[in-house]
Amino acid sequence: MLKDLKEVYSNFNSLENEEITLQGWVRNHRKQKEIGFIDFNDGTSFKGAQLVYDNSLSDFDDIQKLHIGSAITVTGKLVKSLREEQLFEIVVKSIKLEGDCPEDYPIQPKRHTREFLREQAYLRPRTNLFSAVFRVRSVAAMAIHEYFQNNGYVYAHTPLITTTDCEGSDQMFKITTLDFDNIPLNKDGKADMTKDLFSKKAYVTGTGQLHGEAFAMAFKKIYTFGPTFRTENSNTKTHANEFWMIEPEIAFCDLEGLMNVEEDMLKYIVNYVLEKCPTEIEFFDKFVEKGLKDKLTKLVNSKFTRITHHEVIDVLKKADVKWEFTPSYEDDIAKEHEKYITEYFNGPVFITNWPKDIKAWYMKVNEDGKTVAAVDLEVPGAGELMGGSQREEDYDKLLKRIEEMEVDKESIDWFCNLRKFGGCYHSGFGMGFERLLIYLTGVENIRDVIPFPRTPGNCEF
Amino acid sequence: MLKDLKEVYSNFNSLENEEITLQGWVRNHRKQKEIGFIDFNDGTSFKGAQLVYDNSLSDFDDIQKLHIGSAITVTGKLVKSLREEQLFEIVVKSIKLEGDCPEDYPIQPKRHTREFLREQAYLRPRTNLFSAVFRVRSVAAMAIHEYFQNNGYVYAHTPLITTTDCEGSDQMFKITTLDFDNIPLNKDGKADMTKDLFSKKAYVTGTGQLHGEAFAMAFKKIYTFGPTFRTENSNTKTHANEFWMIEPEIAFCDLEGLMNVEEDMLKYIVNYVLEKCPTEIEFFDKFVEKGLKDKLTKLVNSKFTRITHHEVIDVLKKADVKWEFTPSYEDDIAKEHEKYITEYFNGPVFITNWPKDIKAWYMKVNEDGKTVAAVDLEVPGAGELMGGSQREEDYDKLLKRIEEMEVDKESIDWFCNLRKFGGCYHSGFGMGFERLLIYLTGVENIRDVIPFPRTPGNCEF
Repeated sequence: MLKDLKEVYSNFNSLENEEITLQGWVRNHRKQKEIGFIDFNDGTSFKGAQLVYDNSLSDFDDIQKLHIGSAITVTGKLVKSLREEQLFEIVVKSIKLEGDCPEDYPIQPKRHTREFLREQAYLRPRTNLFSAVFRVRSVAAMAIHEYFQNNGYVYAHTPLITTTDCEGSDQMFKITTLDFDNIPLNKDGKADMTKDLFSKKAYVTGTGQLHGEAFAMAFKKIYTFGPTFRTENSNTKTHANEFWMIEPEIAFCDLEGLMNVEEDMLKYIVNYVLEKCPTEIEFFDKFVEKGLKDKLTKLVNSKFTRITHHEVIDVLKKADVKWEFTPSYEDDIAKEHEKYITEYFNGPVFITNWPKDIKAWYMKVNEDGKTVAAVDLEVPGAGELMGGSQREEDYDKLLKRIEEMEVDKESIDWFCNLRKFGGCYHSGFGMGFERLLIYLTGVENIRDVIPFPRTPGNCEF
Repeated sequence: MLKDLKEVYSNFNSLENEEITLQGWVRNHRKQKEIGFIDFNDGTSFKGAQLVYDNSLSDFDDIQKLHIGSAITVTGKLVKSLREEQLFEIVVKSIKLEGDCPEDYPIQPKRHTREFLREQAYLRPRTNLFSAVFRVRSVAAMAIHEYFQNNGYVYAHTPLITTTDCEGSDQMFKITTLDFDNIPLNKDGKADMTKDLFSKKAYVTGTGQLHGEAFAMAFKKIYTFGPTFRTENSNTKTHANEFWMIEPEIAFCDLEGLMNVEEDMLKYIVNYVLEKCPTEIEFFDKFVEKGLKDKLTKLVNSKFTRITHHEVIDVLKKADVKWEFTPSYEDDIAKEHEKYITEYFNGPVFITNWPKDIKAWYMKVNEDGKTVAAVDLEVPGAGELMGGSQREEDYDKLLKRIEEMEVDKESIDWFCNLRKFGGCYHSGFGMGFERLLIYLTGVENIRDVIPFPRTPGNCEF
């Protein structure tokens, strides 16, 4: 009976004492004179299985030679384990070597540093840590799709290639079919972009929001979930040049409604991961971030604080702390402030109504003329997890902001027109998927929650 | 009671005769002297609702002035309709104008050509056709995620930016932070790519397969689902420069096993869409492709034919047809052949064991030395829907093929190493998501199943 470990774990009672066949890899191999133990995993489950074999097998000697990392097909009897820490073991009847692995295999059953494993990015999913991280990544992605689809949102595939340059083209990668060694020139001696495939300068996008708004004006509730790109030349733990974003956009929704969605969605995701990945979460709790499980459980049961930027500055100014950056009603808040605020309120905090000069041009200006209806969600331990706003739905006001902020109007004419053709009040937010994963796993570096991370100077594999 | 149309349709019985509030858009407006009818839709449901108002309302005159396309909030009583073709109508109590729409609004309640609507891509989701297409796109995407997640696959986010050039770099877009007007040169007078963000030439990818294989060697069963790019300068109905692909990769899986997955997955998706989008499918059946619903229902209940390329050529040679392209045992088959074969077998056909010279370098060469363990799935009306293969798992054989096919070995060293470090027999396939949508909706042109299509010379919005 060909099975995988996932099935064996979920149907152990009905499979107990049956002969089963599994296919997977040798994670570790301990040999004694008359007996041997193989730590086996087929990748379908975080938890592996122990294979036990002894010298009653005719090919005992061959089995003893099996290398760590080898691919095997094993047939044996599934028996209840006598050891408390494992549910079962498999008493081997036969093992077939499917693919050998040399002794210089980089992934050995010992602790490797994360830096070393980044250099082995194509092999690191075989380690416990990355097996857990990337399984949670997959499950969290599914949680997001389920949340939005169950709540009537349409999944919109907004384009990645764009000629809309609203983020500022210096932050966007150019995409081209031109030959760098032989760029065609126009009569002014500049690159002749009409020779490019799209007949003009094109970029890969940093946001799906603008196109998402067009879809929200048709389907009311939409979300995007896809890769985004920034050229930021910065080597921090939280920056990568390619990352995934979720960007919901909702017609007839104000800032309060938006916060309701953000809170509801985050609780749904966290709960989903706690339910579907209990062993992975236990692992992170034990080896990566002590208290992780409590942190996540607490979030699901908490009520998020909602407070204005002005009130936050009040709190920070009153605090008995010597700030590196002085809190100011006109400025963004610093990492140290974020940390203080989530600790002060002992949980996630929505900060609303930010000074308009430090926020984006498309956000709705509040009646005070000074702040915008923007909201950032700060979570304990991970800082800003989502950023959203009510969008400016008034055509004339939007145009005024576009002029003030010197945004290139021409390429977003169509976007502005959404305000003319049956526009309505609407809101949306963006969540960096990797930032969510950092929060969910406790793994601190964005390079360790992306399968093959791209950062300045690093585009291996 | 604030509701959306989706809820009203699914809970009509409990809401009947209640006063409800809806928010959405005026699709059409017919006015009589003492009464008026508004075709209303809020985008949460393909089917809209009729609003009925009469001159007993104090603002009757204002309501009569409502333009097509306007955003409104309407409150009224939900009553069972006396007309057979609609379940209910809403007897208006009040309407608030949320956003006006001028009379030159491009989307009028009449038939627009698809060509015209492509030029209004940001507005076309508001039409019946595109509302149906993009809702099916969303639902089909969810079907894919559900299928793989329910069957124990890990969703792998393979990178889009890559320096691996295995498809041939002429088919890939370059991605850069360099200034085209001022490309830095090295001492040979060539572009100095060390000055680029990744310190070398980088591309956006046309496949996630290579990285998917690395993940399959850790998780056994994985799938990708994301955007891919090709620079193809071709203006056909089936080519776009940006499209979405699904690429599952499965360890310990041979070609037969792969066909089982492909067949099972496709039936799951089709069934899911039939169940979740019955009105959209009815609409396509009536206005886009007569017989679509039968075609889809038949597929779910059929057994797909499995036949070798050699046998296909036999069938084609025996056919009493004057071919434009002569069928050959050494060549690919033409569109006319695909059509004939699916009609001949009256359903989907897996064609296996293709001549190795016309297929990719990573496919497993069969024992005959002439063919590879590749499989294409041909479906009636849409041609090739999926392409897959068993992968060459033998390190030395793979290297030989890489040399023969003149693939750049250096950038895929890591990929070849997967064969050294516990490699095993494994298989995978790719499905173009848009091709699936063309099959599911009957809409023929790829530009009409992508929200904002990118084709040569076209990158608007």
